[in-house]
Amino acid sequence: ILYRGMDSWEEVVGRIRTLHTDTLRKLATRCEDRFMAGQKDHLRFGTDSWSHFRLTAGKPCCEAGDAVYYTASYAKDPLVNYAIKICRSKVKETQQQFFHSLAVRQSLALHFNIQQDCGHFLADVPARLLPWEETQGGDEEDDEEEEEEEEEEQGEEEDVEGQMKKDDEKRKPANRTPDARPSAADGRPEEPSPHMNSRGSLRSRVVVITREVPFQTVADFVRQGASRHARNPELYERQVCLLLLQLCSGLEHMKPHHVTHCDLRLENLLLVHCLPGSPANPAEPNNNNNNQGNAVGGGGGGGGGSGPANTANANANAAAATCPARLIISNFSQAKQKSRLTAGDTGTLRDQSRLAPEIITATQYRKCDEFQTGILIYEMLHRPNPFEETPELKEREYTWADLPPLPLRSLYSQGLQQLASLLLTVNPSERIRMVEARACLQCLLWGPREDLFQALGATAATAQPTAVSDAGQRETTLQNWLDLKRTLMMIKFAERSLDTGSGVSLEDWLCCQYLAFASTETLSRVVNILQQP
Amino acid sequence: ILYRGMDSWEEVVGRIRTLHTDTLRKLATRCEDRFMAGQKDHLRFGTDSWSHFRLTAGKPCCEAGDAVYYTASYAKDPLVNYAIKICRSKVKETQQQFFHSLAVRQSLALHFNIQQDCGHFLADVPARLLPWEETQGGDEEDDEEEEEEEEEEQGEEEDVEGQMKKDDEKRKPANRTPDARPSAADGRPEEPSPHMNSRGSLRSRVVVITREVPFQTVADFVRQGASRHARNPELYERQVCLLLLQLCSGLEHMKPHHVTHCDLRLENLLLVHCLPGSPANPAEPNNNNNNQGNAVGGGGGGGGGSGPANTANANANAAAATCPARLIISNFSQAKQKSRLTAGDTGTLRDQSRLAPEIITATQYRKCDEFQTGILIYEMLHRPNPFEETPELKEREYTWADLPPLPLRSLYSQGLQQLASLLLTVNPSERIRMVEARACLQCLLWGPREDLFQALGATAATAQPTAVSDAGQRETTLQNWLDLKRTLMMIKFAERSLDTGSGVSLEDWLCCQYLAFASTETLSRVVNILQQP
Repeated sequence: ILYRGMDSWEEVVGRIRTLHTDTLRKLATRCEDRFMAGQKDHLRFGTDSWSHFRLTAGKPCCEAGDAVYYTASYAKDPLVNYAIKICRSKVKETQQQFFHSLAVRQSLALHFNIQQDCGHFLADVPARLLPWEETQGGDEEDDEEEEEEEEEEQGEEEDVEGQMKKDDEKRKPANRTPDARPSAADGRPEEPSPHMNSRGSLRSRVVVITREVPFQTVADFVRQGASRHARNPELYERQVCLLLLQLCSGLEHMKPHHVTHCDLRLENLLLVHCLPGSPANPAEPNNNNNNQGNAVGGGGGGGGGSGPANTANANANAAAATCPARLIISNFSQAKQKSRLTAGDTGTLRDQSRLAPEIITATQYRKCDEFQTGILIYEMLHRPNPFEETPELKEREYTWADLPPLPLRSLYSQGLQQLASLLLTVNPSERIRMVEARACLQCLLWGPREDLFQALGATAATAQPTAVSDAGQRETTLQNWLDLKRTLMMIKFAERSLDTGSGVSLEDWLCCQYLAFASTETLSRVVNILQQP
Repeated sequence: ILYRGMDSWEEVVGRIRTLHTDTLRKLATRCEDRFMAGQKDHLRFGTDSWSHFRLTAGKPCCEAGDAVYYTASYAKDPLVNYAIKICRSKVKETQQQFFHSLAVRQSLALHFNIQQDCGHFLADVPARLLPWEETQGGDEEDDEEEEEEEEEEQGEEEDVEGQMKKDDEKRKPANRTPDARPSAADGRPEEPSPHMNSRGSLRSRVVVITREVPFQTVADFVRQGASRHARNPELYERQVCLLLLQLCSGLEHMKPHHVTHCDLRLENLLLVHCLPGSPANPAEPNNNNNNQGNAVGGGGGGGGGSGPANTANANANAAAATCPARLIISNFSQAKQKSRLTAGDTGTLRDQSRLAPEIITATQYRKCDEFQTGILIYEMLHRPNPFEETPELKEREYTWADLPPLPLRSLYSQGLQQLASLLLTVNPSERIRMVEARACLQCLLWGPREDLFQALGATAATAQPTAVSDAGQRETTLQNWLDLKRTLMMIKFAERSLDTGSGVSLEDWLCCQYLAFASTETLSRVVNILQQP
């Protein structure tokens, strides 16, 4: 059986192709296990574990749109860092939003690019951990006392709405807050509990424990990247593509759950350092390995790059990978979820079958995230939101020509322009879908690139074939391209086995996902989309 | 340029083949760098470093034919273990043999399977480190005193012979011996120096520092393997093949240097634990990872084994690899070296050109190691040396039929029988060469196997082709086999990149060497040799 067909070249080539594909799929899965090792543990911290958390620094590690994050350690597992997310808004509004976003997020399966919480509490937080509130004067505290009074009433109200799962946690509003000092050697706080302090220095806030410790938001990345964008546009725009790819992956994951984020903005997208690491030491979030402003010129797993000469310096690139960080979608407070009754309950289904589609809950939000992603492309490339700049655009059926052009700064600019236009298409039915946007970004990052498109065109021109054989030749060329890229990817993994450093990078994994699940059909489709006039 | 030929399937398949071959060659080289990391440092310990060595255990780690080995650590690099080799024989005879073997070994380039010393001394060794001498009574010491007197005279004699490079080291006979206790915290011995002890407890011996710490000899392995051979013949005989392959590699390496060992016996072949490890921690020789009597049924990188199902449990096998250990050829005291003048000096060449070949020095030893390797095959498979059992065999022109048959116990038995017969061929000109023996072992270990040979035959039979197209089909089949095996090897390396354990094993490296440098010609030749009737 083993050697059947060994005399047939075609059969052996087919088997090698199958082996490569199957192995890349397996490697993609193993990478996922490794990169999500901590997250898949399904940690749940109850109210009783709250006092075992200690902040490891007095300053926030990240200031996001809806919350401020502090790095913290858990006494029972002190080597792993966690983030304590302290929501910015006052308890009343936060709580409603938070339990709404909690309900939405709990309906989603785990995903690498979607924030996951390991526990949440209503807690009294020392005012010094809320530095942004200091400017707001003293009327704050009165508000809060009101809120706390209202809270007991609201509790039942929210239960009725079915938005709150953990009301026992919610009903304990006065949990002790972790202190900002590193924990003392004996594990006990050196000062009296902050709870005992004057009432004025504490604020009641929703706090969340998350496994992933963000070091900045994409807003920070874009702001800090302005000069890098001018200095090294190739690298900066490649990094933008890698972040957008992760964003699209996360958003694509939400589609089958009928969830739309509806508030995609730079400050709601968090960046987390990403080192696969060994299971023994899964989290070293303070290591800056992936965030160094390196000078790899868009190379990495780069598109056309092939041949053994190119794999030689792949090792040098391994540590200094292009991908700036793992992107995490946060703040689901504005998220819309299409009622699940639509599909489940047949009675409701019968009722709804008589309604116009735009009336069914959340249907009008279906392509909202696509649109917002289009705006993010402008903003990440340091251009203003076209609809903020020209608000009257939205008043009419604008065309692609009405959208401001993105400057052509790198290999990626034109493709990103094309993608932004497709995402900002005025008619939602004609607007590109998230799955296609993701495929476009993969194609921009790892090919096939323009030169192959041109080769495809050239073949067609010289041979002057019929439409049928043209399609056949196109398919062959794409299959050949895929075979070669898969071989190169396999070689990259093989060489990583002898690397002493961090091994497989996030970019390796993302590229492996692409090549493992691409086919000539998907490639052909995305090439057509990107070549649209 | 990148996409030239991307429309041609043949060209892409050819490029993938080239990429696989080139990458495997590069990986084989990188494996060598990793497995020989310590050895390639070219450490040389002078007499002055002798006092910085401390034995880490009071018992020998290995008792070989010519010497006893103790594990030792070097004060300036305490994490790395060394072996102290104390030669068994008394100084006079040892010295002659030792400096002869030193000269021979120094003429060889570094090799993974050939013992290398990092320094050698004449030292006074406490009698308790020479336990085998205790039974010999008290006349010992008188002998030694004589030896020490003779030594000064001999020194000059040996210089004349050009066999001694380090006479300054040799002229310091009374170096302090490392103590058998672990070094004290302050780095100073707790007792007075052994040199100060009564003269009677010290013996003057040649001692050698080696980087590789042997844990047993192949003789020990064979003795301990007797029951395993009966219980799990598939695994035991595969391990024998892996050891023989390493032996043949080492001996093949000696051929261009015109060196013949001439004393290949089980107790002169040492086994060293072999973990590639990271450069940061290159040596953990006490780790038993590779020596566990595991139950992997000859699988590992096993010959025909192919398909993704097989690679799935490759991970499980990674830690418990089949290869029992690294084999090191030791004791070059009987080695013969053909005078290098033959090739270099034209005057000598002219003189020698008139002599019959058997008269030129060491020419008669040319195929001696091949013969002794044939005997070792019998002994490693728990059969007596055929010429010890039937001494009269050598008196006549025996044929293969006269050699005792090896019992057919495993997949490997028949091939080993064939190889032993080829190595024991009475006429040295007809005897198989070392390079071919090495190729046979690779073929036995990793294929192509019988079933492919039969497929080759079947194709020939059904198609009834001419001799020419038969050869063409054979070549195609072998090339297809090689392409598929190389793909599988690449996949194995790729999967190792995500293994958390030791990563690439010695067996992976040995197999990679084979596949990287095999061609349809070499495969065809070895298949012919193993199929000889």
